[in-house]
Amino acid sequence: MPDPIRLAVDVAGGDYGAAVSVPAAIDALDQDALLSVSLFGDESAIRPYLAGLPAVSRDRITLTHTAIAVPMDQRPARALRHGRGSSLWLALEAVANGDADACVSAGNTGALMVLARRLIGTLNGIDRPALMSWLPSETGHTYLLDLGANIGVRAEHLVQFAVMGTVFAAQVDGIDRPAVGLVNVGREDSKGDNILQSAARVLSESPLNYIGFVEGNDIYQGGVNVVVCDGMIGNIVLKSSEGLARMLFSALNTHLQRGWRARLTGWVGASVLRRWVAQFDPGAHNGAALLGLRGVVVKSHGGADRAATTNALSRAALEARRNVPENIETLVKTITEKVET
Amino acid sequence: MPDPIRLAVDVAGGDYGAAVSVPAAIDALDQDALLSVSLFGDESAIRPYLAGLPAVSRDRITLTHTAIAVPMDQRPARALRHGRGSSLWLALEAVANGDADACVSAGNTGALMVLARRLIGTLNGIDRPALMSWLPSETGHTYLLDLGANIGVRAEHLVQFAVMGTVFAAQVDGIDRPAVGLVNVGREDSKGDNILQSAARVLSESPLNYIGFVEGNDIYQGGVNVVVCDGMIGNIVLKSSEGLARMLFSALNTHLQRGWRARLTGWVGASVLRRWVAQFDPGAHNGAALLGLRGVVVKSHGGADRAATTNALSRAALEARRNVPENIETLVKTITEKVET
Repeated sequence: MPDPIRLAVDVAGGDYGAAVSVPAAIDALDQDALLSVSLFGDESAIRPYLAGLPAVSRDRITLTHTAIAVPMDQRPARALRHGRGSSLWLALEAVANGDADACVSAGNTGALMVLARRLIGTLNGIDRPALMSWLPSETGHTYLLDLGANIGVRAEHLVQFAVMGTVFAAQVDGIDRPAVGLVNVGREDSKGDNILQSAARVLSESPLNYIGFVEGNDIYQGGVNVVVCDGMIGNIVLKSSEGLARMLFSALNTHLQRGWRARLTGWVGASVLRRWVAQFDPGAHNGAALLGLRGVVVKSHGGADRAATTNALSRAALEARRNVPENIETLVKTITEKVET
Repeated sequence: MPDPIRLAVDVAGGDYGAAVSVPAAIDALDQDALLSVSLFGDESAIRPYLAGLPAVSRDRITLTHTAIAVPMDQRPARALRHGRGSSLWLALEAVANGDADACVSAGNTGALMVLARRLIGTLNGIDRPALMSWLPSETGHTYLLDLGANIGVRAEHLVQFAVMGTVFAAQVDGIDRPAVGLVNVGREDSKGDNILQSAARVLSESPLNYIGFVEGNDIYQGGVNVVVCDGMIGNIVLKSSEGLARMLFSALNTHLQRGWRARLTGWVGASVLRRWVAQFDPGAHNGAALLGLRGVVVKSHGGADRAATTNALSRAALEARRNVPENIETLVKTITEKVET
């Protein structure tokens, strides 16, 4: 039987706040009888969504009121100085205190990162937490990290990212020996600067399934489960991919309105095109993992809807059940000891 | 009347060699009465494509025989030591000697870059040549540089790239005051390391139309004509975008074969979908510019077909007619003097 899990939810974050996060939390409770949730946010915003809830669900919800919310555009350093008592701060603190097993927020990503690091702390052997997300590929999906939490990394950080991604893909997705690649401008061993060369050397000698340097197209081609890079690169790859996909979909929509044949195509093909777009729906895999902390922290997309938010909550519960943080610490220790000897 | 232009063509390069480059050169001559071409490569491979050519075209073609070709996978350093007398070397030398106004090659990109730098040399005020290409956007297209010629750039290199891209977009595309952006993980002025901060400062005070930091999605959203970044980032953005587009198109094809409704959609919508894909056809804009040299050098895609290769040749001729190198030197001088005073 799976472990009971207590989720701390920052209700204030995201584009829709309580209107999405509370119903999503209720859905998550419906789907998982061993789940309980602690909601952090403005009581008056939350209460309406709890009205009429059956006792069996209501009993698994606790509510901690705070009117303080970290603004979406607040600078991380400011959130660190002034964020105390905010819904984000309290939700993270619940994980730090052991009152919750995982925290989910759709709020300010920069603030989430600095507050999580400050309140929960990093694992032994991990210098910096990393943000990891899921990208679709021809053969399934590929994890990409770091997405912007770390800019200007050293070789050991890349190695730590590789460990984090491996543990997550193995534990959460059940992938046997996930294939890990390092982003470079070419696949040849000779390519890349000293940082990449040195990370590649450590990874080659590690117990990880390191497959070598990979290029940008490998992310989507499949054949690699975890793609590791500096946060600047990951951030720009993620955003440019989102921009390209949006442009292609929107251009197709425009083409489908030009003339009777195009409109007929749109009409006949509506379900086909919907299935095609849905295949790449980020909502189905909503939730970027902030890895390397002494607890599970998941960033839900700011614009995530109810179903996508429920998904992020379920993924956070699964990550906690599979003990991703402890497993990262164990694996990174093995590699560090190997490098030092 | 436009100036007469002499193009030096490395016939050996690319996936198809003379079979594509010679017919493409003939097409380019047909389209532009003031063009002449010098073909560099194996005479026996070239001759068959020249047979039966009317004198009016034949008279504008010269042929320099060499059996030496730089292998597509040869390391640049090796090409530099052993490439003398190869078709690529001779074509670049023709530009260096003033026997040709521009060189086009579909060969080994790394070799092209080091040989071009060695034989043609960089412009005053330019430390390193950069590779620039075209990406489609919602409002037209965006130039992205550097694409991998320069990894680990300093601030002054980013400024030089901005100058090169501006001159190209203004002169070749006729864009009035092209908007230039620097790739960063966010648009806020405070984001980014010292290199980005310092490049942004110089660009803000320059005569360029610098619009500030841009994110990955801005490349495809439009609103910026020239996007400047380190070669590592440009390379990975370009390749991941190619990979994503390929995956989306191929997944749509798969969906269009599942069931009668899907097949009907594919049948009715064939022309619509073709127009949609064609809108993003890189062939129509084939040719990455190697900028910052004392001459025009264009890299045609290795897999480019006849029409795409003709396009690269015409673009190279246009770049030479518009004096892109001289204009880059003039503009970079203005900015350097401003910074120094």
